[in-house]
Formats: sequence, structure tokens, C-alpha cells
Amino acid sequence: MAISGVLRPGFIQLRVLDMPGSIDHYTKRIGMHQVTEGPDGRVYLKTADEFDHHSFVLRRADTAGYDLMAFKVLEDADLDKFEKRIADYGIAADHVPAGEMPGIGRRIGFKIPSGHRIELFAHSEQSDPKPRVHNPDVWEVEPHGMRALRFDHALLYGPEIEKNLNFFEKVLDFRCAERVDMPDGLLAIWLSCGMKAHDIAFVKYPEPGKFHHAAFDLENWNDVGNAADILTRYDISIDIGPTRHGITRGQTIYFFDPSGNRNEVFTGGYTYYPDLPTRTWDEKELGKGIFYYERKMNDAFLSVVT
Amino acid sequence: MAISGVLRPGFIQLRVLDMPGSIDHYTKRIGMHQVTEGPDGRVYLKTADEFDHHSFVLRRADTAGYDLMAFKVLEDADLDKFEKRIADYGIAADHVPAGEMPGIGRRIGFKIPSGHRIELFAHSEQSDPKPRVHNPDVWEVEPHGMRALRFDHALLYGPEIEKNLNFFEKVLDFRCAERVDMPDGLLAIWLSCGMKAHDIAFVKYPEPGKFHHAAFDLENWNDVGNAADILTRYDISIDIGPTRHGITRGQTIYFFDPSGNRNEVFTGGYTYYPDLPTRTWDEKELGKGIFYYERKMNDAFLSVVT
Amino acid sequence: MAISGVLRPGFIQLRVLDMPGSIDHYTKRIGMHQVTEGPDGRVYLKTADEFDHHSFVLRRADTAGYDLMAFKVLEDADLDKFEKRIADYGIAADHVPAGEMPGIGRRIGFKIPSGHRIELFAHSEQSDPKPRVHNPDVWEVEPHGMRALRFDHALLYGPEIEKNLNFFEKVLDFRCAERVDMPDGLLAIWLSCGMKAHDIAFVKYPEPGKFHHAAFDLENWNDVGNAADILTRYDISIDIGPTRHGITRGQTIYFFDPSGNRNEVFTGGYTYYPDLPTRTWDEKELGKGIFYYERKMNDAFLSVVT
Amino acid sequence: MAISGVLRPGFIQLRVLDMPGSIDHYTKRIGMHQVTEGPDGRVYLKTADEFDHHSFVLRRADTAGYDLMAFKVLEDADLDKFEKRIADYGIAADHVPAGEMPGIGRRIGFKIPSGHRIELFAHSEQSDPKPRVHNPDVWEVEPHGMRALRFDHALLYGPEIEKNLNFFEKVLDFRCAERVDMPDGLLAIWLSCGMKAHDIAFVKYPEPGKFHHAAFDLENWNDVGNAADILTRYDISIDIGPTRHGITRGQTIYFFDPSGNRNEVFTGGYTYYPDLPTRTWDEKELGKGIFYYERKMNDAFLSVVT
Repeated sequence: MAISGVLRPGFIQLRVLDMPGSIDHYTKRIGMHQVTEGPDGRVYLKTADEFDHHSFVLRRADTAGYDLMAFKVLEDADLDKFEKRIADYGIAADHVPAGEMPGIGRRIGFKIPSGHRIELFAHSEQSDPKPRVHNPDVWEVEPHGMRALRFDHALLYGPEIEKNLNFFEKVLDFRCAERVDMPDGLLAIWLSCGMKAHDIAFVKYPEPGKFHHAAFDLENWNDVGNAADILTRYDISIDIGPTRHGITRGQTIYFFDPSGNRNEVFTGGYTYYPDLPTRTWDEKELGKGIFYYERKMNDAFLSVVT
Repeated sequence: MAISGVLRPGFIQLRVLDMPGSIDHYTKRIGMHQVTEGPDGRVYLKTADEFDHHSFVLRRADTAGYDLMAFKVLEDADLDKFEKRIADYGIAADHVPAGEMPGIGRRIGFKIPSGHRIELFAHSEQSDPKPRVHNPDVWEVEPHGMRALRFDHALLYGPEIEKNLNFFEKVLDFRCAERVDMPDGLLAIWLSCGMKAHDIAFVKYPEPGKFHHAAFDLENWNDVGNAADILTRYDISIDIGPTRHGITRGQTIYFFDPSGNRNEVFTGGYTYYPDLPTRTWDEKELGKGIFYYERKMNDAFLSVVT
Repeated sequence: MAISGVLRPGFIQLRVLDMPGSIDHYTKRIGMHQVTEGPDGRVYLKTADEFDHHSFVLRRADTAGYDLMAFKVLEDADLDKFEKRIADYGIAADHVPAGEMPGIGRRIGFKIPSGHRIELFAHSEQSDPKPRVHNPDVWEVEPHGMRALRFDHALLYGPEIEKNLNFFEKVLDFRCAERVDMPDGLLAIWLSCGMKAHDIAFVKYPEPGKFHHAAFDLENWNDVGNAADILTRYDISIDIGPTRHGITRGQTIYFFDPSGNRNEVFTGGYTYYPDLPTRTWDEKELGKGIFYYERKMNDAFLSVVT
Repeated sequence: MAISGVLRPGFIQLRVLDMPGSIDHYTKRIGMHQVTEGPDGRVYLKTADEFDHHSFVLRRADTAGYDLMAFKVLEDADLDKFEKRIADYGIAADHVPAGEMPGIGRRIGFKIPSGHRIELFAHSEQSDPKPRVHNPDVWEVEPHGMRALRFDHALLYGPEIEKNLNFFEKVLDFRCAERVDMPDGLLAIWLSCGMKAHDIAFVKYPEPGKFHHAAFDLENWNDVGNAADILTRYDISIDIGPTRHGITRGQTIYFFDPSGNRNEVFTGGYTYYPDLPTRTWDEKELGKGIFYYERKMNDAFLSVVT
């Protein structure tokens, strides 16, 4: 396919209360690597299977939660193209100069209707560890902890998600892979910018800008079980799982980082293509859609956000 | 990303010597379903996880081998666009009317430099079994046999693969995910039209139009082991595996259908994006690239084709 | 080791309310095979990996629950030896003649302090399907449904489990692999007659003779996930899981048969040897012992029995 | 069952050419831990899941190969009982005093007809790391490398294996789980002292006292795949695999330590009981018995020993 525009989630920046404990959590338990610490104290992380400079940014703050999520676009010209489209849509974008984050080129940023800051960038330096390109091994650095392969997607909570849906489809060329329609309207959407069942998802929530979880991709269900063992062994709070989502079909476990930010590690899910129908869910089977084995929501999933 | 043009491998048509035995092989062992038999005796198969009418076509003939592979494009207008591009490139395309195959709209077809017929189509009816779209289960029809999820890709052997590479990149908007360069030139290419490490691949071979294998995607390494058990239990000839490819990282097993056409069932492989570097291999590590554990080619892999 | 006496759980007999639905459940979903139906309407089931005539007996009744569990001993003389030991212990044993169940030789039966009937037998005919003995394949009959390998163990609820412990250790030569001691006394015991972490287990409960679950062994965690998919797909009520037990370390899922009898399918658990220490649990970590990931009991696990 | 006599393989002692490289191999790659180094330079290793002091002993020597394998018996009196039985059988046993190896009590040793030294011991101190006994976690020390769970068994090559079979059955109370009978006589035997399909195995070979492999148990087929990735990544020579044995059904991979001693990591295999028939193989299906997927022996398997 002619691939252009938004490629994938590039990185997410979260606020954490305790930096050393957070670094331990994301590196020792989830299995990322620390790339560097910036002069302002932000810490940049990546998995060993990612080429780009970083995919996860931790910022020390007094409240946990979401600062921003940045998508990588194919080429620098895309930034101008999207800035114009965003402006035409009636949203103001700002500019973040290259170097505001180590290794990352210029970004444009804007607030979507649900109150979340989204950014786009086209350029990233590569950093170590990363896969070798010539005669590569399956991995260069032996996987550890939960063996996370990549930062994969985020689920965000906020109002006006119908407007988010319209914006992501019309302006950023995403497609809606799955949606939940309740009697009182759209409850949730799973949006894809490529062939994954979701790159970003939204659930309707009265308060804007809230963060539900950041998800890491694992190789298989066996690694989900291994992650569960790690969580209990190190007394990390599990939200739910191991289980499966009916929506996206991912096999998953949810837990919390030391600041209360929710994490997911998951595997699987079908391959999405733009000619596939949007899968739809109603209130009758929503429980099965969210947690396929439990077949009902747990209270925390709908209410605990940062 | 803005997705357009060629989406994915739609179907492949292979020649088989014995139709009933072939149907048994692809349905009972690999786990596909027979959709229908056409008036000309061709048999149409699909997996239960595919929406489109069929993904595998068997044609009775006196020699085994490859007839054609058809890629699905996003919309009908793409067919005209690609026909013009192909003509501009200097290759003549022919037209196959809708209905030549049950459930499939009009196709354009052409011969690439390696001597293989490739087709493009934009429209397919859906057929059963297929995933449900509203409140779906993880599967509607219980998986059986090797539990194949989809027809995934093919590897073809022929001359002039440098020209194939140029054609697929320039005309069909594919990207080269991996390549093998030997002292005497390009030996092999893995081409992606989306986010899989390969949708079609070519190995240089003196005889045009030869077929190496058609591959089916499995859920995980456990299913590769299950496939291996099935192969020995039913005395199906294994070529090699279970093993892993260094190239694409897929975990795999190769075997032969009753007519001698090679099949692969595999899982995994990294997620490809168009900003990722092409991974390159040379003769020093080619064995590891092809069979990561054996670290050397087996003779059959390079010489046995249909 | 010199192996003698009680070898393993031979079969369990459960009461079911609806025979056709129960047969469907145990054959189509759990993956057993029906061996025969007796003249009194009892239905005899086995897995394809078991040699003995049957391992599971269903009896139509108006209440669900436990009739008996029978252990196989190595040789006929063991029956006389154990009958004497049991009598010396002060428990009366009765005789069940050969042929009372098809394929099974004479049995001795007795009621243990918790109110459950236990039987011993030495002889079983073999029945099909079963593994081949000469040049065997990994399986003769392709696994289906949850792919159960064998009836593995049962957990029973009743009073006086200290006396059960004494009886099983002193009279039947079992060993206690794990135990839970609460401030008010012994809560639960896991007893092994061989190298599995448990062949039978008991939880203290006021009412005698109650049944918690019968468990089937699966090959691995992947099959536990597959079982979970089957359970939701066919609307079978799940109690809890997929999860892991801290006690025995088994990876598991619990659900109910159509009559409300609880089933478990599980995999793993450490290899037990008689020189290993009994693992002990107290009320502080009991939740983790029972459900390692949830780290707390669910109400149903302690209260719902048949 | 009444369990007495020989419990399990306790430890094996192998000769290695290069001690530091061997320690790296067994600790970093296979995933064991070094317990201690003795005053004579022998190095003692264990897995984190084993309670006993050690299960693997490395001795620096100028040729690689097998020194001895020691089985643990249930109690000290068993040593006297077996010494008498062995003497009655016509084999002289010698005494190794407690403390000859750190942590291990007195041993009796003797040479079996195939020319291998076998030892028995009843007492072992426990060493760290080991599982916790009170409120244990699934593991105390996070698994690493190939995640070996235990030293499981050895396969030895030598003459007179019919006599070995008789000795192990009559004197040590082992049972023969599987055997290969060729037109010219018994080729191989798999012997169990408990419920594993093999604790020790022998293949007929003209030269006495030869060593084929020492095997480590893994949790599942996924870990066999992980082991394969590790082997290629660190350029460790693979003999064969990942594959499955028809004999024992184990899923396996074979490779070599830095001195050329063959290792196996494997998972699975059926549960053996003493009332099960001995499974038999003949020359027609021997290939499938040894390597179930390849269905033929590789030359190295029958000829390369240390």
C-alpha cells in the first residue's frame, strides 16, 4: 500500500511521582532500557527492539498522568501538511523545536476535543540498544523482565470522543477498527493508523485529558503469563488479567506503575486492514468486549484514571 | 497512515495433481474451509478468520506449481491507476472480468520480470465462515488442524529479481524489508506492501515462474509445534523445521502438499514500518538468515520448487 | 524408587442433572471421549491419552455432586493389604465386585472422616482411544476441545480434614505437599501419592461429602488460554481464571459443567518428591496461595460446592 | 504410592576443558547458579528451583566426558540396603565419605556393565537459591538464560546395556518406560525410577563409559524456542532441534557445551506409571522415535559422544 502520513505511536510522556522507582519499574520489570536523562530531569526510555531514540518519557511531577503522546509521520513535509489540515479543521497547533527532547526533530502539537495533547514528529535519531541492520540476530540484547517489544498504544479518557473520532479520521487519516455504542451514545473507539487493531483509543469520560493506560506489546501469551508472575513476585498491583479483550482480541494483563499510572502488556489481536468493517459493540455484550473471559467490566477499569 | 493502493495478498492459485487429496490437506490439516467449487473444477478455500470470499484456489493440472497471485487494492479506481502505471513501466496488463472467479470483481493481470503472473483486484464478496462484526467472539468456528489464520505470503523463484524489485517499489509502492546480496549480485528480496515484514518474496533462479512456497499465519510458536505434530502423525513430508528465520524472524515449519507444492506455516516476525531500514544479508551469514538455528541452507530449500 | 500401593487417581464418579448436556460438555468442550454407557445409565468417559478403561463416570441424579473417587493400586494384593490397614485404623471397608463398572475389577470402598467415599481398585481393562504402545505417535486421535490429557485430581470439601490427613498419610502412604494453617486450625491440605504436587486435596467445610472440583491436566499455558476462549465462545460459566495457584504453582482456569459441578483445567506445577518439605501457608498470604495473581480469594471459591 | 529407594537423579559430574567458559555456559546460558567451588577446583552448580546443595559438578580435565551420576535415595538405610543388593548381584561397591563433595553425605559408588560409574546418596544439605517453603512465590530468583528448572536425566553410551537393564530393574527398582529392539538386539533403553518417562537412558555403543548428553527440564515449548534463540545468538553449536522425540514425547533441542559435552533442554513427555506398558520401537520407525519431525537419525546423534 502507499504508506504516508502518520506511521505509528512514537512516544508517550507520563508524569510520575517518584523517578527512581519509576525507572526501576519500566526498566527492570517491563524490560525497557534507559537511553538518557535530559537536563530538565526527564528520563527517556526505549525497548531494545525499537530503532527510534526513545518511546517513553517520564517527567517528575506532583500528580501522575498524561502529558502528551506523539505520533511519528513518514517525512518532514507531512508536518506542514498536517499543520494546515489541523488549522483548517479549526484547531490551533503549536511548534516544538528540534532538540526540546534529545534525539527528536521538530514537533507540532495540539489539543484534541477530549482534552489531550497530541504531537506529530518526523525525525528521530536512532539510539542503542537497537536491532542490527546487517546480518541481524533475533535480538542483540537478551530480553529481560516482561520482555516488552515496543510501546504500542494508549487508551485515553475524556469528553467529546465523537469529535475525536471525526478529527482522527478526517485530519489524521486514522480508521476506526472497533466502537462501542451505548443507548446514550458513543462510549469508546479504537483507532488505527496502520494494520494494528489500535494505535490509540478513547473512552468517554466527563473529565478531560485523563489517562487510562499505556500498552506494551509482548511476543505471546506465554510472556503475558511471565509478566503476571513478575507482577505478583514484586508486589506490583494488578488491575485485571491475565485475560483477553473481545475488542481487538488482545491477550492482556493490566497493572499500575509506582505512581498509579496504568500499564498494559498484551499480545495478539487481529491484523487490521482499511477495507475491513468496523467491529461494533453494544451494551448487551460490552462486558465480553472489554474482558472476554470475565464478561463484565470491573469497576476500576471504568473509573480509575490518572 | 494514509493507506491506499495495494493492501495485501488476496489469493493465490496453485496447480495440484490430485484434487480430493489436496482439499483434505488444505482443509483437514492446515485448517482452511472449502467455500465452493467453480464450474471449471477450481476449488476455492479460505480460513475462518478471513472476510473475503477466498484466499486460496486449487486448479487440477498435470504439473504442480504456481498460476498466479492476486493482491487486493483499496478501491476500484486503484485498478485503473495501477494499469496505467504498469503500462508506463512497459508491461502489458490484461483484464479478467468480474465473475471469472466466484465472488471476485474485475482483475488486471500482468507478468513480472521473474516470469510470474500477478493480478490486482479491488472487490471481493464476503463468504462464510468469517468473523462476526457485531459483538464478535474471538472465533465463530472452532479452529481445527493447524489453526491457520490467513494466507499470508508467497516466495517465488525466477530470474531478473532486480527488475522485480524495481517494479514492485516503483509501480506497486512496495518496500524492501530485507535483501540478500551475494558477491555475484542480488540473491533474494522480501517485499512489504504494509506492516508485515513480507507480503511477497523472490529468490533468483534461472527458470522463470517457479514456486517455492505459500505461507499461512499461525497464532504462536505453540501452534507451530502443533503443526509439526500433525505433519508427522499424518505422514506429511516436512522440508525443514520447526525453526526460525533470521530474515523476518518468523518461527516456521515447511512441508509439502500432496502435489509437491511447498507450504509454510509460521508465526511472528517483527512489525515493519516504511521508515525502518532495509535489513541486509551477505553470503557470510546467509545460512543464519534463512534458518536461524541450523545456520546453513538445506539443499532442498534452494533447489526444490514447483 | 520402589513404587507400590496407590498409584494415582483412577476415576471419579459425579452426579449430573442432564446427561446429554453433560456428555457434550465433557466430550466436545473438555475433549474427552465416551467409552460406553452402562446398563444403569451411567456414562463412562476417558481421554485419548489414558490407557485405563475410563477415568470419569457420570450418573444421572436429581442433585449434582460427588459420588466417589477411586484410586488405582499397583496390584491386586494391595487391595487386601489396604483393606486390613483401613480396618486396623477403625474404618469399615465394603466390597464392590468386578464388573459393577464396565472394565474395572473388584474395588474396596470406604468413607473418610470428611464424609467422602473413596475406593481402591487394581485392575482395569484398556479401552479405545488410547496411546499405541509399539512405534507410537505423539497422539493417535487428534486432540480436540480443551485437549485434556487426563483426569488429574479432585478437591473435596468437608469436616475433619486433620483426620483425613492422618488417614491418607498413615494408611494410604500419601504425603502432604502443601498445607494451609489458619489461626483456628488446619484449613486445607494437598496430598500426593506420587510425584505430582497433588492427587487429592481437602478444604475444611462444615458439611460433609461436598465436591469442589475435578481437574484435568493440559499440556501448557497456551492450552489454558485456548480453554478460556472455548468457555466464553460456548457461554460456559467461568469461576475464575486464567490465573495461577501459588499452591502447587499450577496455571489454571475454573468453570462449571451444566449441572453446576466445578471443573478445572490446569497445567504445570512443580515436580514433587517425598524428600521435599511440605510447603506451608498462613492466613496472611492465603489469597496469594490460592490465586497467585488476584492475591485474594473470590467468594465463590470458598462457598460454592456441589 | 509407597515411595522408597531411589528417588531421582541427584547430580552428575562432567569433565570440562575450560572451567571459566564452562561456568559461563551453564550459568549464563542454561540459567543455573554457581553454589561453590571446592578446594580441588570442582565447581558445583544448581538451578534456583532445586532444594539440594547441587545438581551439576564440573571437573577440569584434559578430556571432556562423564565422571559419574549420583541418584538420591530416600533415607540413609537405603544405602546399606542397596549396597547389599549390589554385592549380591556381583558388583563391588565402594564408599565415598560425607564431605568429599560439599553439602553431600556419604555415597556408595559402583561401575555398571556399560562401564559408567553410578553413585547413591541419601543426604544433601540445602543451598541457595532455592524455593521458599513458607508462603512461597512461584520463584524467588527471577529465571534467566534458558530458564532451566532442574537437571533431569542423562543418556549414556556403552556396551552390555541388556545387563544394565537387568541391573537397574532388579537391583535399583527402576522400570523400563521405552526400548528399541533392532534385528541384532537391544539398541536403547529409557529407565524410570519414578513418574518421569526417563531418569537415565542407555544406547548400545562399543566403547564403555561414554557420555551422550545431560538434560535440563524447561517449563514449556516456548522456552525451548527461547533456548534456540540463545544458542544462535551466542554462537553455541546446536546438534539438532527444536524438535520432538517420539520416544518420551519430549520437545527438545540439543547443543554442546564449550568442551564438547552434549546438553539437552527439553519439556514435556508423558507421565509414567509402573502399571503402564513399556513402549517399544523397532528399526522401521526408529528415526521417528528419536526425532519425531525429522523421522531419521542424524549421524552426530549416534556417533558423537564424550
